[in-house]
Amino acid sequence: MAKEKLVKEITSMEEDFAKWYTDVCIKAELIDYSSVKGCMIIRPYGYAIWENIQKIMDDRFKEKGHENVYMPMFIPESLLQKEKDHVEGFAPEVAWVTHGGSEKLEERLCVRPTSETLFCDHFKNIVHSYRDLPKLYNQWCSVVRWEKTTRPFLRSREFLWQEGHTIHATAEEAKAETIQMLNIYADVAEKCFAIPVVKGIKTEKERFAGAEATYTIEALMHDGKALQSGTSHYFGDGFSRAFDVVFTDRDNKPSHPFQTSWGTTTRLIGAIIMTHGDDSGLVLPPAIAPIQTVVIPIASHKPGVTEKATEVYERIAKVCRAKIDVSEQSPGWKFAEYEMKGVPLRIELGPRDIENNCCVVVRRDNMEKTVVSLDELETKIPELLTAVQNGLYEKALERRSVMTYDAHNLEEMKEIADNKPGFIRAMWCGDRECEDKLKEVAGVTSRCIPFEQETIGETCVCCGKKAKDMLYWGKAY
Amino acid sequence: MAKEKLVKEITSMEEDFAKWYTDVCIKAELIDYSSVKGCMIIRPYGYAIWENIQKIMDDRFKEKGHENVYMPMFIPESLLQKEKDHVEGFAPEVAWVTHGGSEKLEERLCVRPTSETLFCDHFKNIVHSYRDLPKLYNQWCSVVRWEKTTRPFLRSREFLWQEGHTIHATAEEAKAETIQMLNIYADVAEKCFAIPVVKGIKTEKERFAGAEATYTIEALMHDGKALQSGTSHYFGDGFSRAFDVVFTDRDNKPSHPFQTSWGTTTRLIGAIIMTHGDDSGLVLPPAIAPIQTVVIPIASHKPGVTEKATEVYERIAKVCRAKIDVSEQSPGWKFAEYEMKGVPLRIELGPRDIENNCCVVVRRDNMEKTVVSLDELETKIPELLTAVQNGLYEKALERRSVMTYDAHNLEEMKEIADNKPGFIRAMWCGDRECEDKLKEVAGVTSRCIPFEQETIGETCVCCGKKAKDMLYWGKAY
Repeated sequence: MAKEKLVKEITSMEEDFAKWYTDVCIKAELIDYSSVKGCMIIRPYGYAIWENIQKIMDDRFKEKGHENVYMPMFIPESLLQKEKDHVEGFAPEVAWVTHGGSEKLEERLCVRPTSETLFCDHFKNIVHSYRDLPKLYNQWCSVVRWEKTTRPFLRSREFLWQEGHTIHATAEEAKAETIQMLNIYADVAEKCFAIPVVKGIKTEKERFAGAEATYTIEALMHDGKALQSGTSHYFGDGFSRAFDVVFTDRDNKPSHPFQTSWGTTTRLIGAIIMTHGDDSGLVLPPAIAPIQTVVIPIASHKPGVTEKATEVYERIAKVCRAKIDVSEQSPGWKFAEYEMKGVPLRIELGPRDIENNCCVVVRRDNMEKTVVSLDELETKIPELLTAVQNGLYEKALERRSVMTYDAHNLEEMKEIADNKPGFIRAMWCGDRECEDKLKEVAGVTSRCIPFEQETIGETCVCCGKKAKDMLYWGKAY
Repeated sequence: MAKEKLVKEITSMEEDFAKWYTDVCIKAELIDYSSVKGCMIIRPYGYAIWENIQKIMDDRFKEKGHENVYMPMFIPESLLQKEKDHVEGFAPEVAWVTHGGSEKLEERLCVRPTSETLFCDHFKNIVHSYRDLPKLYNQWCSVVRWEKTTRPFLRSREFLWQEGHTIHATAEEAKAETIQMLNIYADVAEKCFAIPVVKGIKTEKERFAGAEATYTIEALMHDGKALQSGTSHYFGDGFSRAFDVVFTDRDNKPSHPFQTSWGTTTRLIGAIIMTHGDDSGLVLPPAIAPIQTVVIPIASHKPGVTEKATEVYERIAKVCRAKIDVSEQSPGWKFAEYEMKGVPLRIELGPRDIENNCCVVVRRDNMEKTVVSLDELETKIPELLTAVQNGLYEKALERRSVMTYDAHNLEEMKEIADNKPGFIRAMWCGDRECEDKLKEVAGVTSRCIPFEQETIGETCVCCGKKAKDMLYWGKAY
């Protein structure tokens, strides 16, 4: 058993990043493959990360007055078809239920790929007066999109997510909500997941089906690919017109309300893996780590060691999420195991440490060892956890900075796209044709028009005409 | 608006219990109907109750070492068919996915009606040695059963639930787990939902498809009908044999492990409504009430009233889940509204109360008014909440006691079943034939063979032969 587990080796990042990624997903026991093609099993350790993410986000949503609801998982075909752009975007990739028991259904039902249509249908029932507005709703559930190629967390046929849906009396309010939620996503990504993100707006081409504007946070993975990590959509009154949602406004006139939706998914776990992980496995930011500190007794057969380690564990369990491993495996096996699982700190405690009234604390992010007096555990462990959290963010920010390039013309764009994985900043004229051509010629897609603009040239990187905006471009998951 | 809302009247229980029930579901804003037949929308107030239930149960599960996971929502037809009894029980009522996008699937997938088959398939991958056991898993998700007739919370085509799935090295351990989880369900039902329950084992006829034994908690609703409120199943090694799950035991021999599953659903919300509700609407036990105390200012146009009410609200918000309603609606409208929503306590505070440094606290369960000094708010409010919690349980227990009858022969059984809604206790010989006949003749089903046995006769209530056990019988939801 010990031997078999010691060979828990993974492909190195350098050798094959995609293989490294799936190795980490499996070996850190985040997921298992299921017999349903394209659907994964989220194992206890992976799900505990998701629960921590949920708790953080749910609290942030509720602070801003959002309430959770639950809508049906099915959408009748006729309901899905009510908003033209929306159905065009989603119909090709939905799963269809055609039979209930042995009977054929009168109307096909799709398993929700997203729930705008269901929320609109409900809003029509409950929104009548300006007094009924706004409604600030959120839902935690799973959705289904029939993807051809799938990867754990990043793209699976079923995935877990939250989808916020709000409805407002004015366009201004709805727009403010869209931006507020994007800012919450960015804040949580940076502070809790230690992932620096670029905030911006999507081009029309990359917009959500049915939206007037789609805002996004874009992160850069270890391999230089971009990952869209959360989106927030402004719908104007397009959906409320299509679904005939009408309210009486303050002037007693019938009016269509304005809507938003915003979502993040288990994909965030993929972002965490690919931002912080290394060749020893997962590296978790303390804010979402199921185990923040693991205590490993050394030479535990010697008298007093297990007892002292247990005492240390009990003390630190009061200041962080802690675990002690007193199993019969060797310390070396345990080191490898908790490194694979990305536990931020490990405490090693052996007979000599006990003699000296101290322990060795090892940081997962940089393998730095600190000798900590046992008298100072309750202050030093939280300090070290904060140091890991900040260290991970700094390291990711530094890497993103190194891997962000500016392109001023098509030649440069191609050269960078071919040879330097990362974000490419470049000016754009605003034409879809140029966006399409950059995809075709350089293999990059527009990630977003960042809120923080910087003029790095006067002309479009593609056509050379007058530029409108600076964009982030890249190869993306 | 105010007028329209004041007419928020509901059918009385006496007049039409079924109508009263759906009126409460709608008027207390727990649910809305959706355009998907048989599926409901759980609105914020209803979902907040479910979140409180989830929190309580999830904590209890984790205390006992259970971990949450997430399995796919789809089950391939071939996987569902692996355990014979199980597929026979569920296949007639599953929803079938036949197409992904525009393509027909090679194999139909059913939307999970329950996940034993998926868990077994996963256990086969991860259980190899006795060291891998037990696995104590739980999942919060929604499941689908294609019911013909549906009612909010009690029976809907899609419903939310938790399903525990555990796997053990020995039958004894698995049996102990089955009983442990039933006891947790009973404890939470009584202590948190204030619902007295009968714990027992189901007859073979009423057993879960594929189980060796099904344990249940049975509650009695206001109208005298029984509601199965939680079940815990012992599977023996039936599933592990069917799914070829094998582990090497301590003696190094290949062996089949033993399994359990246990579940509770949003049906619990129906149980709470039908146990405690009255003609003014919902009555919520404080332990799961989204709002435990609502503060209503009286004559709030008078100087100082709103300010003082806000101060009172801020103080009690530190000791319970509180709300203040400073809207322009009349106090009378607000009283009716929060009674409909079952808020356990309301605080009325007007100019005269402020002069006297007191407020009036009204209990929702018995409408008792208590004058409370403003100096004592932080101690009196929690005391009153405890009093409501206990009062609800006592009242429900008393009613169940009054509505439980003993039958000694078929005549008595028919007479009680026809005229006295409630539980019927009667001896039974153990034969399926008698069970079927009682259903046919008296319209009752066996609820359970209670753990607490009492010999109320020597002979079977149906055939007159020697009796084996005392059973609870009744008409059930």
